[in-house]
Amino acid sequence: MNESAPVPIGIVGASGYGGVQLVKLLEDHPKAEVVYLGGDSSAGKPFSSIYPHLEHSVDLMVEAIDLDKISSKCQVVFLSLPNGLAWKMAPTLLEKGCKVLDLSADYRFSNLETYQSWYGGERTDKQIVATAVYGLPELYRDRIANAQLIGCPGCYVTASLLALSPLFKQGLIVPETAIIDAKSGTSGGGRKAAINMLLAEADNSIGAYGVASHRHTPEIEQICGNLAGYDVKVQFTPHLIPMVRGILATVYGTLRDPGLVREDLLTIYNAFYRNCPWVKVLPSGTYPQTKWTCGTNLCYLGIEVDHRTDRVIIMSAIDNLIKGQAGQGVQCMNLMMGWEETLGLPQLSFYP
Amino acid sequence: MNESAPVPIGIVGASGYGGVQLVKLLEDHPKAEVVYLGGDSSAGKPFSSIYPHLEHSVDLMVEAIDLDKISSKCQVVFLSLPNGLAWKMAPTLLEKGCKVLDLSADYRFSNLETYQSWYGGERTDKQIVATAVYGLPELYRDRIANAQLIGCPGCYVTASLLALSPLFKQGLIVPETAIIDAKSGTSGGGRKAAINMLLAEADNSIGAYGVASHRHTPEIEQICGNLAGYDVKVQFTPHLIPMVRGILATVYGTLRDPGLVREDLLTIYNAFYRNCPWVKVLPSGTYPQTKWTCGTNLCYLGIEVDHRTDRVIIMSAIDNLIKGQAGQGVQCMNLMMGWEETLGLPQLSFYP
Amino acid sequence: MNESAPVPIGIVGASGYGGVQLVKLLEDHPKAEVVYLGGDSSAGKPFSSIYPHLEHSVDLMVEAIDLDKISSKCQVVFLSLPNGLAWKMAPTLLEKGCKVLDLSADYRFSNLETYQSWYGGERTDKQIVATAVYGLPELYRDRIANAQLIGCPGCYVTASLLALSPLFKQGLIVPETAIIDAKSGTSGGGRKAAINMLLAEADNSIGAYGVASHRHTPEIEQICGNLAGYDVKVQFTPHLIPMVRGILATVYGTLRDPGLVREDLLTIYNAFYRNCPWVKVLPSGTYPQTKWTCGTNLCYLGIEVDHRTDRVIIMSAIDNLIKGQAGQGVQCMNLMMGWEETLGLPQLSFYP
Amino acid sequence: MNESAPVPIGIVGASGYGGVQLVKLLEDHPKAEVVYLGGDSSAGKPFSSIYPHLEHSVDLMVEAIDLDKISSKCQVVFLSLPNGLAWKMAPTLLEKGCKVLDLSADYRFSNLETYQSWYGGERTDKQIVATAVYGLPELYRDRIANAQLIGCPGCYVTASLLALSPLFKQGLIVPETAIIDAKSGTSGGGRKAAINMLLAEADNSIGAYGVASHRHTPEIEQICGNLAGYDVKVQFTPHLIPMVRGILATVYGTLRDPGLVREDLLTIYNAFYRNCPWVKVLPSGTYPQTKWTCGTNLCYLGIEVDHRTDRVIIMSAIDNLIKGQAGQGVQCMNLMMGWEETLGLPQLSFYP
Repeated sequence: MNESAPVPIGIVGASGYGGVQLVKLLEDHPKAEVVYLGGDSSAGKPFSSIYPHLEHSVDLMVEAIDLDKISSKCQVVFLSLPNGLAWKMAPTLLEKGCKVLDLSADYRFSNLETYQSWYGGERTDKQIVATAVYGLPELYRDRIANAQLIGCPGCYVTASLLALSPLFKQGLIVPETAIIDAKSGTSGGGRKAAINMLLAEADNSIGAYGVASHRHTPEIEQICGNLAGYDVKVQFTPHLIPMVRGILATVYGTLRDPGLVREDLLTIYNAFYRNCPWVKVLPSGTYPQTKWTCGTNLCYLGIEVDHRTDRVIIMSAIDNLIKGQAGQGVQCMNLMMGWEETLGLPQLSFYP
Repeated sequence: MNESAPVPIGIVGASGYGGVQLVKLLEDHPKAEVVYLGGDSSAGKPFSSIYPHLEHSVDLMVEAIDLDKISSKCQVVFLSLPNGLAWKMAPTLLEKGCKVLDLSADYRFSNLETYQSWYGGERTDKQIVATAVYGLPELYRDRIANAQLIGCPGCYVTASLLALSPLFKQGLIVPETAIIDAKSGTSGGGRKAAINMLLAEADNSIGAYGVASHRHTPEIEQICGNLAGYDVKVQFTPHLIPMVRGILATVYGTLRDPGLVREDLLTIYNAFYRNCPWVKVLPSGTYPQTKWTCGTNLCYLGIEVDHRTDRVIIMSAIDNLIKGQAGQGVQCMNLMMGWEETLGLPQLSFYP
Repeated sequence: MNESAPVPIGIVGASGYGGVQLVKLLEDHPKAEVVYLGGDSSAGKPFSSIYPHLEHSVDLMVEAIDLDKISSKCQVVFLSLPNGLAWKMAPTLLEKGCKVLDLSADYRFSNLETYQSWYGGERTDKQIVATAVYGLPELYRDRIANAQLIGCPGCYVTASLLALSPLFKQGLIVPETAIIDAKSGTSGGGRKAAINMLLAEADNSIGAYGVASHRHTPEIEQICGNLAGYDVKVQFTPHLIPMVRGILATVYGTLRDPGLVREDLLTIYNAFYRNCPWVKVLPSGTYPQTKWTCGTNLCYLGIEVDHRTDRVIIMSAIDNLIKGQAGQGVQCMNLMMGWEETLGLPQLSFYP
Repeated sequence: MNESAPVPIGIVGASGYGGVQLVKLLEDHPKAEVVYLGGDSSAGKPFSSIYPHLEHSVDLMVEAIDLDKISSKCQVVFLSLPNGLAWKMAPTLLEKGCKVLDLSADYRFSNLETYQSWYGGERTDKQIVATAVYGLPELYRDRIANAQLIGCPGCYVTASLLALSPLFKQGLIVPETAIIDAKSGTSGGGRKAAINMLLAEADNSIGAYGVASHRHTPEIEQICGNLAGYDVKVQFTPHLIPMVRGILATVYGTLRDPGLVREDLLTIYNAFYRNCPWVKVLPSGTYPQTKWTCGTNLCYLGIEVDHRTDRVIIMSAIDNLIKGQAGQGVQCMNLMMGWEETLGLPQLSFYP
């Protein structure tokens, strides 16, 4: 392949919000080109029949999912499918030499038993799972760069882990005190017709769901436990709020050393994310608005310490469909391809 | 006064959202009638020039604030003013025999030093403060019924206390573990022009504010401490979300007795609020949406226990302008007048 | 039946937004009581399993639709079903002595051919259609009072006709110049799962639909034609806007007499609606906001004349689910029962 | 100046939504670089103190407005100020050799009397006005390319003119029948604190304003008149709807030749905009959503013909802050600098 020719990319499961976001990001990417869009329910239709705003810019058909065809056309494949489907496709694609980035939960767990107890299914692919790398570049940059198979974390987990990682890595909080109160726009629920996601129902309302039982909990615990070196339990409560994009995770933990002040934490966080172009630690006293991240791959972190209660409070804001989904995948792809981590990814929000 | 004649009511500070909400609720009230609307900035203008939708139904002028006039016309006076003004008016009104319901912070603190350290001002009215009753009927029904002066709690505190009171009253949680993560619609900020409250800025965004420093914190602590019998510290984090009305407080606490299950908590909460027509404890597994409360004086409570973390999680939803402000005042007034606690207050939300 | 006992009401098709709105309005109605809720898809479930906010206040099951049972229990029956179903039920209910109010299109057309050319179906019930009265009380108050069967107009048509009726009745505009540009909240689309009604899709967007082909067009033309005494053609363009409730119809017409000024029109409209408690003609220079109507049965009309173009512009705002649907039905029921037209209907919006 | 060095750009009035949008677009522009931000109210403050999301990417101070300094540093100057200020600055900047793009109304009118009758002020700069070019590239591409001073049209007018221009240029409609019913997100009102723009007031509501009197009317008429060759009068009615960005103009006109069908119009529009990369005529039967334009410089046009009424209906959608403001300016700058018209401008919306 000519050095200057763009790398051919395939997206399986293109019709959802993750898919259309990948299409948008890759159209703007200087070294990649989408050449294949796959999806069974829309197979045979132009992609622009699903997303008419792409009529004049994206001239691709959605094709039935054919792994041979995909692997013959594509160097990199994004799997943007419901949980439980990717692990039936990835092995074939890997065998044929594709790099695979999975946006579902299938390759996020190193322990298949944990996966199965929360997601079900009878997985027999322990060996392939062992080769998968967790796709959070801020923690696993080098491993991602050398991987063929990535399990990218989703929106809630990305916002939560970027807030919690320095705390667990450095043992700053009493482990069992970690609480994540997360608030998401409704696009996080995906592009599926559901009564509770109608504007008429979801607008001007907020509610929690999956309280004490959401399956992102064990994923957060797995990574925090890896960082800490011991088992970790966190409290995770997601809420739906009336907006399209964005997640804010408000994270609480009791400091082991109550003498730490806000500036100490800022120093620690700035050091931890020094080489992370997509994480911005806000200045003292500034807290993030999700709108600042809208349309970008950024995560903003705001940090506060409450000396009345000896708690640290971290606010973490991302665009759920970019840093929380498609942008994360592109960031990982950049690393896998040896490109700059920021290549082709948007940095400046349209405001307002 | 003839038994069937409506009780004449005055509202000082009528032009804000609390004021117009009081006007609406009292127009629908069978035993009360608004006869006076006061406000310095709008004095001399018809109330409907501020709120044109009232053109055909409310035929009152906004008048300059004249305490003698108010007390001569009104049996009950609502003060709906910025903090720090009510305590300069209430004494005169009380002296002239009016019942006074203050919606500001001025009469919410039994300890004036606490008030002053968070709100400033040089208060010298210790004696009158001692006669004020905290206007949360679910806790202080009998005292409200016998009071002449009420300091009504606002939206955040009402939602928080209705979630926390059974826990502290019965010593169910480790005291220092109480965390309140609260999310409010923007009408809670009042009817004042501010850039960050513009639709263009606040829509499609969420952020925290007043983290570790919001002055509703000591108010929540005062009441929880009274219920518990010892000093209490809570973590309180407010957020603005892109909707007009509603507050959801998500409250966390670690159970002292990890053997308690969800059904135990439901039993305790149902018993605690047995005689409270405005608090609805939801069935097992149901969590509230703020939309359910919109336009009503209701508080919905959802209860969950996480046995992995030994925490109880309470979700508390109210309409911030009704149960969190004007409706609370009317509920207190009903008690002060010896009427049914539910009189004239809306119970069924317009849905959606 | 005892004079003071409430009139028993049935609602067929209770699970939609029209149904739940009827339930809310009738719960607040002093002379009516809902005793039957029918719906095939939800039959056998408590109504509060569909609408959990009614858990504590509405204790009715949804029952399978059984016309005998309905007619034996109910004096008045609301049919709140998709188009094409009511005409198969109404005859039986009428025969058994029920008063029937249909919220669908089935009884809105006096000419069955027009109905069939826009809605399809093989109607054979010409005789019953001849007894149906068009349920817009502002135009047909007396006929409604004496009817057994009402075909209530929906949201777009109600907003449009209340703007247009004085113009056509009095021949004020050049007939072929009438244009209705209407904007609706998404609840007008009903409670059905549809991708384009998701918050993620409909928020922060506006688009037109049914341009030059919407089937509310012939209904508006039928009534305007009746008022004018000649055939009328109107242009009707509906738009979906990102809000839950409310319709604004902006109506344009060229004045036959360019000498007419705004005050002339105000006089004409005020006279036309003199005895109409639910229509409020706004003062000179004031234009309606749909928010003013939210939660009420009101229609606000704003009137402007442009002397540069000789056009009159009428802005008509209603709550699409109340004056545009359930409230209209209750208003008609009030007339049919000989009650005050305003009985039990909300007049004051919760603002904001 | 080195060929590869970016062209230095100044923005006067940078703190508003037009300003921050220009900053964003020019940061992404490959041949331009913002070197100066001016604004009197924010002078001396870092730009990121106004827009904290730019903290890590834009390192510029807002400076007091000093025309000498601006002209010494900048080759191109955008004036993004309230109406009536630009004409006092532009002459000096032009004299010093800057290219000037004004986003206000000051240079949109070739006839100063028209300007003054709608905007007031005592203008004495007839000679400079004569050199200004109207900044709508789809109509005046060549003249813009050769101009030093551009008066860029704003959001309502751009959406309206792109819909109307083919109709007037080719004499397709009866001139006096043109009606523009326009709906705008609230960011169009600018970044100023105003009660009616608060989320609490503007959300879940729609209303018209400036009916029969909005000052964009004469601007639309000027350009349509130029295209037609005779005086034109249009009806223009703006509405505010509850969203941040986007304008939809629904345009009506009666066809002179009722034999024209939709496909004829599509052919005419496609030909008219053949060389216009930012205007997309949608396929037959497709109507635009403003969301499709969000974050792009695109205008989508949907076209319908109603043979019942002999009217053409054009729906025109843009992002009010890009094609309706800052993007238009950049598009004009590209032409003035001899660059590709699309350079640096976003083409693909983030969806949803």
